[in-house]
Amino acid sequence: MMKIGVLISGGGTNLQSIIDTVHGKSGEIAVVISNKADAYGLTRAKNADIPAEVIVENDCADVDDFNAKMIDVLKDYDVELVVLAGFMRILTPAFIAAYPNRIVNIHPALIPSFCGEGFYGMRVHRAIFEYGVKISGPTVHFVNEEADGGPIIAQKAVPIDDCETPEAIAAKVLEEEHKLLPWVVEQICLGRVHVDGRRVTIDRV
Amino acid sequence: MMKIGVLISGGGTNLQSIIDTVHGKSGEIAVVISNKADAYGLTRAKNADIPAEVIVENDCADVDDFNAKMIDVLKDYDVELVVLAGFMRILTPAFIAAYPNRIVNIHPALIPSFCGEGFYGMRVHRAIFEYGVKISGPTVHFVNEEADGGPIIAQKAVPIDDCETPEAIAAKVLEEEHKLLPWVVEQICLGRVHVDGRRVTIDRV
Repeated sequence: MMKIGVLISGGGTNLQSIIDTVHGKSGEIAVVISNKADAYGLTRAKNADIPAEVIVENDCADVDDFNAKMIDVLKDYDVELVVLAGFMRILTPAFIAAYPNRIVNIHPALIPSFCGEGFYGMRVHRAIFEYGVKISGPTVHFVNEEADGGPIIAQKAVPIDDCETPEAIAAKVLEEEHKLLPWVVEQICLGRVHVDGRRVTIDRV
Repeated sequence: MMKIGVLISGGGTNLQSIIDTVHGKSGEIAVVISNKADAYGLTRAKNADIPAEVIVENDCADVDDFNAKMIDVLKDYDVELVVLAGFMRILTPAFIAAYPNRIVNIHPALIPSFCGEGFYGMRVHRAIFEYGVKISGPTVHFVNEEADGGPIIAQKAVPIDDCETPEAIAAKVLEEEHKLLPWVVEQICLGRVHVDGRRVTIDRV
């Protein structure tokens, strides 16, 4: 079973979706790493008997040291696939190079719309609301050195013309995030995902 | 019945979709203007007994004169709504100011992705293919002075993960264009479309 490391910063609802759908079935979450000591996702890990570690950037010498410590933990647990589930820090090139096309991130918009520097959390949905787009939805992609710029694995369209606030958009998209991310992680664990440059294909079964 | 002017440059399949769905029902196509004398859309207009005029930019003094001549024709036919159906020229600010939120364009991608200067025709679908996005689809929007930047009226998501060439993407999206554009024109003719800044709402019935 493929060993997965999940990086979190907060509530961990996307982590929970992987625990519920993938863990112990197609893959095994070997460790959860949080950069916040009080992240509720740590409790979710504990409740599922998954080892969890806290690595706080302020306790590290610098951002390189912070990233090196995370890599050390991932290597200790023989992690083959890293999943960013609401992890709010940018990874260093050294971290990304250690897991080429083996780090997965979820972004709450249809990349390449509303992504890149400055587009995170509710900022994404506020920009979408103000622009007045009619369709949004989550994107799961591999992480490369460009913010939100790696090869796209899967996207899901969410009609938002009935959403009267940015918060309503966020809630509707989040619901689909909780389905799309575990589905992608499962497909990777099952060896069905193939990368050719920027184009990603998933075997149909 | 609202009088519609349709501007074309080529085959006019989007014009045909409006003839089939809207013309003589919720609205009336009062005139078709082509900037190409050999556009097949002119034949489509003739076949539907719709007046058609050819205005070639090279026969005009300059781009302002070209736009002024088009406005003259539209005014002659009392046009209230202008529809760009594969019209390949940029309108001048004077033209746009003559029909504020009364010019509709269709773009073959989910704006704000793959739009703006340089993104037209197959260039759009090639960029989408190379980027490796999984969802595309047409956008119908009002025209303002920014290329593809006006308020979005409607969008339709088209999954393209099964498309193995840019041409396959173009064909799949075009099929939805032929449904989305006449639907939007119909909603405008029926007075159901409301604009508030960048946000457009359509009455549900």
